[in-house]
Amino acid sequence: MYRIETDTFGEIQVEKIKYWGAQTQRSLENFKIGKEKMPKALIKAFAVIKKAAAIVNQEIAGLDAQISESICKAADEVISGKFDEHFPLVVWQTGSGTQTNMNVNEVISNRAIEIMGGIVGSKTPVHPNDHVNMGQSSNDTFPTAMRVAAVSEINSKLLPALEHIVQVTSRKIEEFSNVIKIGRTHLQDATPLTLGQEFSGYLTQLKLGKGRIESTIKNLSLLAQGGTAVGTGLNSKIGFAEKIAGKISSLTGHKFMTAPNKFEALASNDAEVETSGMLNVLAVSLMKIANDIRLLGSGPRSGFGELHLPENEPGSSIMPGKVNPTQCEALTMVCARVMGNHTTISIAASNGHLELNVFKPVIIDVLLQSIDILSDAIISFTDNCLSGVVANTDRIKTLMQQSLMLVTALNKHIGYDRAAKIAKEAYKNNLTLQEAAIKSGFVTEEQFSEWVRPEDMVAPS
Amino acid sequence: MYRIETDTFGEIQVEKIKYWGAQTQRSLENFKIGKEKMPKALIKAFAVIKKAAAIVNQEIAGLDAQISESICKAADEVISGKFDEHFPLVVWQTGSGTQTNMNVNEVISNRAIEIMGGIVGSKTPVHPNDHVNMGQSSNDTFPTAMRVAAVSEINSKLLPALEHIVQVTSRKIEEFSNVIKIGRTHLQDATPLTLGQEFSGYLTQLKLGKGRIESTIKNLSLLAQGGTAVGTGLNSKIGFAEKIAGKISSLTGHKFMTAPNKFEALASNDAEVETSGMLNVLAVSLMKIANDIRLLGSGPRSGFGELHLPENEPGSSIMPGKVNPTQCEALTMVCARVMGNHTTISIAASNGHLELNVFKPVIIDVLLQSIDILSDAIISFTDNCLSGVVANTDRIKTLMQQSLMLVTALNKHIGYDRAAKIAKEAYKNNLTLQEAAIKSGFVTEEQFSEWVRPEDMVAPS
Amino acid sequence: MYRIETDTFGEIQVEKIKYWGAQTQRSLENFKIGKEKMPKALIKAFAVIKKAAAIVNQEIAGLDAQISESICKAADEVISGKFDEHFPLVVWQTGSGTQTNMNVNEVISNRAIEIMGGIVGSKTPVHPNDHVNMGQSSNDTFPTAMRVAAVSEINSKLLPALEHIVQVTSRKIEEFSNVIKIGRTHLQDATPLTLGQEFSGYLTQLKLGKGRIESTIKNLSLLAQGGTAVGTGLNSKIGFAEKIAGKISSLTGHKFMTAPNKFEALASNDAEVETSGMLNVLAVSLMKIANDIRLLGSGPRSGFGELHLPENEPGSSIMPGKVNPTQCEALTMVCARVMGNHTTISIAASNGHLELNVFKPVIIDVLLQSIDILSDAIISFTDNCLSGVVANTDRIKTLMQQSLMLVTALNKHIGYDRAAKIAKEAYKNNLTLQEAAIKSGFVTEEQFSEWVRPEDMVAPS
Amino acid sequence: MYRIETDTFGEIQVEKIKYWGAQTQRSLENFKIGKEKMPKALIKAFAVIKKAAAIVNQEIAGLDAQISESICKAADEVISGKFDEHFPLVVWQTGSGTQTNMNVNEVISNRAIEIMGGIVGSKTPVHPNDHVNMGQSSNDTFPTAMRVAAVSEINSKLLPALEHIVQVTSRKIEEFSNVIKIGRTHLQDATPLTLGQEFSGYLTQLKLGKGRIESTIKNLSLLAQGGTAVGTGLNSKIGFAEKIAGKISSLTGHKFMTAPNKFEALASNDAEVETSGMLNVLAVSLMKIANDIRLLGSGPRSGFGELHLPENEPGSSIMPGKVNPTQCEALTMVCARVMGNHTTISIAASNGHLELNVFKPVIIDVLLQSIDILSDAIISFTDNCLSGVVANTDRIKTLMQQSLMLVTALNKHIGYDRAAKIAKEAYKNNLTLQEAAIKSGFVTEEQFSEWVRPEDMVAPS
Repeated sequence: MYRIETDTFGEIQVEKIKYWGAQTQRSLENFKIGKEKMPKALIKAFAVIKKAAAIVNQEIAGLDAQISESICKAADEVISGKFDEHFPLVVWQTGSGTQTNMNVNEVISNRAIEIMGGIVGSKTPVHPNDHVNMGQSSNDTFPTAMRVAAVSEINSKLLPALEHIVQVTSRKIEEFSNVIKIGRTHLQDATPLTLGQEFSGYLTQLKLGKGRIESTIKNLSLLAQGGTAVGTGLNSKIGFAEKIAGKISSLTGHKFMTAPNKFEALASNDAEVETSGMLNVLAVSLMKIANDIRLLGSGPRSGFGELHLPENEPGSSIMPGKVNPTQCEALTMVCARVMGNHTTISIAASNGHLELNVFKPVIIDVLLQSIDILSDAIISFTDNCLSGVVANTDRIKTLMQQSLMLVTALNKHIGYDRAAKIAKEAYKNNLTLQEAAIKSGFVTEEQFSEWVRPEDMVAPS
Repeated sequence: MYRIETDTFGEIQVEKIKYWGAQTQRSLENFKIGKEKMPKALIKAFAVIKKAAAIVNQEIAGLDAQISESICKAADEVISGKFDEHFPLVVWQTGSGTQTNMNVNEVISNRAIEIMGGIVGSKTPVHPNDHVNMGQSSNDTFPTAMRVAAVSEINSKLLPALEHIVQVTSRKIEEFSNVIKIGRTHLQDATPLTLGQEFSGYLTQLKLGKGRIESTIKNLSLLAQGGTAVGTGLNSKIGFAEKIAGKISSLTGHKFMTAPNKFEALASNDAEVETSGMLNVLAVSLMKIANDIRLLGSGPRSGFGELHLPENEPGSSIMPGKVNPTQCEALTMVCARVMGNHTTISIAASNGHLELNVFKPVIIDVLLQSIDILSDAIISFTDNCLSGVVANTDRIKTLMQQSLMLVTALNKHIGYDRAAKIAKEAYKNNLTLQEAAIKSGFVTEEQFSEWVRPEDMVAPS
Repeated sequence: MYRIETDTFGEIQVEKIKYWGAQTQRSLENFKIGKEKMPKALIKAFAVIKKAAAIVNQEIAGLDAQISESICKAADEVISGKFDEHFPLVVWQTGSGTQTNMNVNEVISNRAIEIMGGIVGSKTPVHPNDHVNMGQSSNDTFPTAMRVAAVSEINSKLLPALEHIVQVTSRKIEEFSNVIKIGRTHLQDATPLTLGQEFSGYLTQLKLGKGRIESTIKNLSLLAQGGTAVGTGLNSKIGFAEKIAGKISSLTGHKFMTAPNKFEALASNDAEVETSGMLNVLAVSLMKIANDIRLLGSGPRSGFGELHLPENEPGSSIMPGKVNPTQCEALTMVCARVMGNHTTISIAASNGHLELNVFKPVIIDVLLQSIDILSDAIISFTDNCLSGVVANTDRIKTLMQQSLMLVTALNKHIGYDRAAKIAKEAYKNNLTLQEAAIKSGFVTEEQFSEWVRPEDMVAPS
Repeated sequence: MYRIETDTFGEIQVEKIKYWGAQTQRSLENFKIGKEKMPKALIKAFAVIKKAAAIVNQEIAGLDAQISESICKAADEVISGKFDEHFPLVVWQTGSGTQTNMNVNEVISNRAIEIMGGIVGSKTPVHPNDHVNMGQSSNDTFPTAMRVAAVSEINSKLLPALEHIVQVTSRKIEEFSNVIKIGRTHLQDATPLTLGQEFSGYLTQLKLGKGRIESTIKNLSLLAQGGTAVGTGLNSKIGFAEKIAGKISSLTGHKFMTAPNKFEALASNDAEVETSGMLNVLAVSLMKIANDIRLLGSGPRSGFGELHLPENEPGSSIMPGKVNPTQCEALTMVCARVMGNHTTISIAASNGHLELNVFKPVIIDVLLQSIDILSDAIISFTDNCLSGVVANTDRIKTLMQQSLMLVTALNKHIGYDRAAKIAKEAYKNNLTLQEAAIKSGFVTEEQFSEWVRPEDMVAPS
């Protein structure tokens, strides 16, 4: 049932069916903290690095071709998710992520040993340190894995999600381009705009947000690999850093570069803080947009009522028209989480000491969570709410007609004083502006229709 | 125009009209950062401490009576605000606040010298270190001043402000106790409640908030004084700590105790984080309350419109009834500031090292700002908005009558299916529930009036 | 393989082996967001509530005894963890947690039906709404479950963890009570203290922290149950609120009370913000303590080196004495997470609208995470690091002897000027104070030993 | 002593010597909150806008040339700071900043009236609304002023400060390029690097930080002006938006563009959140750098002691060599403030409603504070600390020689096992590596000198 694994600390029992080794086992026993496992995207990124390292090490550091090949094969299996259960470590471990680096080294070496017909746990013919971790240390591998994971998730999840919401919002703008409605500032009635214009504000926020996320890729694609333990590159070969960045690029399909300064790349995580800062802006934008939509959809009778939101689940069993804005709620909860995650990342990154920041696991766990839940929530909100939002044109029209803000259109025809008088009468006696205008004798019905045209009030003159 | 002041560093020129000495002058030259001066409440607290120390030192450490007396007199003048312009130092100085402690020592000693007929700058007969700072160091004096200032401001400004809003809210609850209105959950129409009940939620938040603030006094009233440089009390006399806490209590009228552990009192600022945490809860509560009130006051015609807010300044020159919720806006901006201040304080307090936390000036500056702006904003909001809020009973009644949520009251009389049918008809054809009910033939007008009574729906059965 | 479940929305397929019903299934399909499942502690708390409600409803609302009994039995099974896999919903759902309330209602009713020999999915003889959710709504049940879960976790995990670290720290203080060491302020050498005194500062932080956590129980134990949809208690019986609070108390062994104001209890989550604020103070304290310990353990040769930390895993394969402070790292990462979680909770709680705050799931998920990881990390840190910390007395003594701060002890014997001269000579020529003192001729070796006694410098005189 | 000013609300008394009018006076009376005045940089930006508007309005909207000219002249005087005391309003006012916009309109119109020989307060010949505010509203003017102020302060203060610290750090790197020192990871001794390499990490952080700040200018230079009240541009002339952006650019010397979407520009403040996010990264970097420097400067005898920091003020009167890292302390306090300010801005910006975000004053006040204190603190830290930092080469060399990490250099000559044995002996018996190596008999003194060369360990092989 158990086999013996060893490290410099001595022997330790590991379940036979597990591919991990001594250092993973020790971490399991020493860090019984929480339920937050190291993110799968990070493990996958690690396996990409180990594969890239094996190829480069064969090329420039004399790694045996067969060993290199079996490392690559084992790494591919890890990437495929086949060994997910063999990465049991939690986020709350050593702050350099050493134990997860060793977990990856151990699983890949044991699997590579197996592929080559050796005995799991024997460290031969594939040694976790000498071969899988060759020319690397946790201190440059972990931050490299962080960025490979973050860039991959941004490119494969977040940016497509943003593109999707941008597309759907654009369609909505077209759909709503002729719906003229009352504007509101300070939550008070104001001059009119079209519903399409209102949504164009959201679209602009989203497009700028997408640009902000894209802009983070530049610094996020600089890799620490090759810096080894303190940034000097000791124990790596000249050229290793550049070659492995190139190999990781080709394996992932995302462009990475070796970090020009490895001391910064190990000791700081500023690019992660920058990225989190842009996710924070996105959360701020989405909070605003989702809040607006639930406000415009409030009702059915005692709210703003300008939008009908799609009904995806029972609201009230007996009361028709009560549609809870559940997608807005899920999205805004995600935003609150992302904003708090940003505080965590900022604090963690500010606490580095000398050659190494040792808050790396929490930084990447939280960053990947932010990317993940934002991506999913954007898709969910877009498909289950935004795309099905319908303008309640009757209500919108009624509110427009009731509004007194249109009185400004009368100024140039009958003068400010008379116009103001009409507005005051309307307000006092609870009349529409039209009713009060006609009643005042200053304006006929025809004139009112001709002069007070909200559609003329939605652009500069 | 200038006189020469000295410290262990040597000579330095100080403007003749200033009471400060060499160390203050050096700080002025070395820390040209920002505009944020050390808060006056802190300077005042410092002067209280210096006075208390002079009295206690005369009693137990042989401080000359005349010197003690002139220190007290000078301290009283500082407390009165007469020397405000002689405390020019910014918050962004040494993290122990040493320079402000010396600023106080220098001003008080120079003024005491003057009182005793000596030459300002001569350090005789009153020496800033030997006499004014006797038995003290910056490391215990500054944290003591922080707490004396914070407790004083909480007691004299924040708690009275909270008591005021509690009183006014209580009056409003009474005023609104019979106003039955539609409830809203998820911003969607829900079963009714009274406007008084709605405001009773605010009152409970405010009362609990007041209790939370009061609860912070316990830890905040533990004073570091007597710990001197590292917490051991070296250079102070046995009994000094207890006696000065007692003296500060009697001078301020607030009860202080000597901290049972001086190492904690110097090295941490946890009680400040705790207090800020409670201010943060209060900000969260006030954000909710002010948001509700601006939402209920939204309109005049295209919003919820259930409340009329007092009009304190022009909203729109031509459009009557447009009352911007400016007091809500000021208050919620204050809340956002306080919530961010809390992040600052938490970060600052988490960064202590060994025997001393050296983020003390920013902690107290930010804490006092939170207390100050919360206190003022609560009063401003209460007097200029809350106390003048009027229920728009016509609108509230109309919304109630339009609501379909009352349909549940029909269930027990005509059965769920018929009731649901009526509600659906009403929603579809834009009828009131009453209209649809009568039209359905299942209910007469009399029955409707008898059965559908919102006033019976605002309590358990 | 599938059965048909129904809700007011219509029919939907559910896997036959699952106990959940239509509303859970819809949520699964509508909210494909993230991996964060509703916390188990919350589900367990929900089951406690459903059991308590069944008992109370039998007593005061005519719930059939047999139905009540089978609900209780099913609830007990949920509490035992047997049905964990039947609660698949994520945190990112409706902000009132309605779908999780329904998930609980559905699983319990289906299991109760099964117990009573009925057909799962038939809603008879046990209906999820009419019986399991009787006299309740999501709006009062979810916040009740939040508090039952939070109080339970605090009492069963966090407070015992705190008590444990308090005990171990107390032992360390005793162990270190005679180890006199150099103090440090501003990270600069200062007057001495004992290592026990230094740790007594930590103990005080921890004890006060424990008191802060305990103080949150008061507001956290006020339950919303009985407020139903908007706080009025409509659809519940008079007395239900009080009775169910009592029943929950007896079932959990923790004292709960019905919230005196249900409007506050639904619309706000201030007690959760308060609790998170106290967890934030604890995180701030632990960050400081863990930072100190890693600093004091820095080395082995080029750091402070005053403490030996236990070696739990390989540090460096070749370099002896290199013990990475991995437990400090895990703990401080947890602290950063908790501090950011506090931002999330504060933002979420500040965004309530009118009768209901709809950020409840994120608030409880994050709060329970903070409690969970703090509890675990405290235990891990205490057992794997703190309890095994050893004073490096040789190093501590060497540093003491090298220190120049002891020069102050010479003042009263040879005067300030000579003492200062000795210190300057020592500093300039890299001598110990003793060497310089003897070399100066002002002091003999015997005198030095007699006069310069660090043990006399660790208390007031 | 007083004159009568009027607005649509009626008459109000204003001190004769003040240039402000009725709306400013009302704000003063209604918002007695805190001490935080609207930042001068914002007032100056406002005056630039008013001048630009006057010029453009003369060109395209028929504004009388003489009126335009006197508005320009008055605006220039405001820009010069001459009227600073006439802008008394606090930040905590209406969330659109209307009152400050009116304050500017009132002061400029009154001063322009005076210039034209009219009677102050008469609104003729220059009307605050009709002429100074022509084609504008608070809703587009205030956000425009925010960005003009922020861009100006970044360009004139922050970027030069960053350039300065970059220059000085570069010089330090050169100075330290041959100082080989022990590296530290996890605060534990690690392989060597040069002090220059260590500082090159800081330089990279600073340069990237500067790039991040520069990148914010793009979105920050998009101006809302021309959107007027709700974003439609109603009441402005076609072309006004583009022309005024051009004019503001030429007046300030910074390139601004009209925002392509005015709805976003009024309703959101995302670019401010983005900018604050980049200031947050900078704060995180500076926190790390300043922490490192105070750690490396810790001592003089019981710390790391690798750096001598400049002594700017008395540390200890009697103990030589005690130099408190006061500039590090000021800088890190500033960083904590900036990080908390970022929370404030994020919360404020997330709370916009529909056509207008009404947290604008707090957003700009806090943003400008962050820019201001970061700029000043960077300069102060650079000039008073960083530029004078000196390597303590004796201490650095001693630590290097004591280090056991160099043992790895022996591996390839005598094998891993013998090398490890030497290291263990050295550690156990408190020997230097050299002493233990020679004692072991495996290595001669000459061999040791030849083989163990730290200078060969600071780069890849």
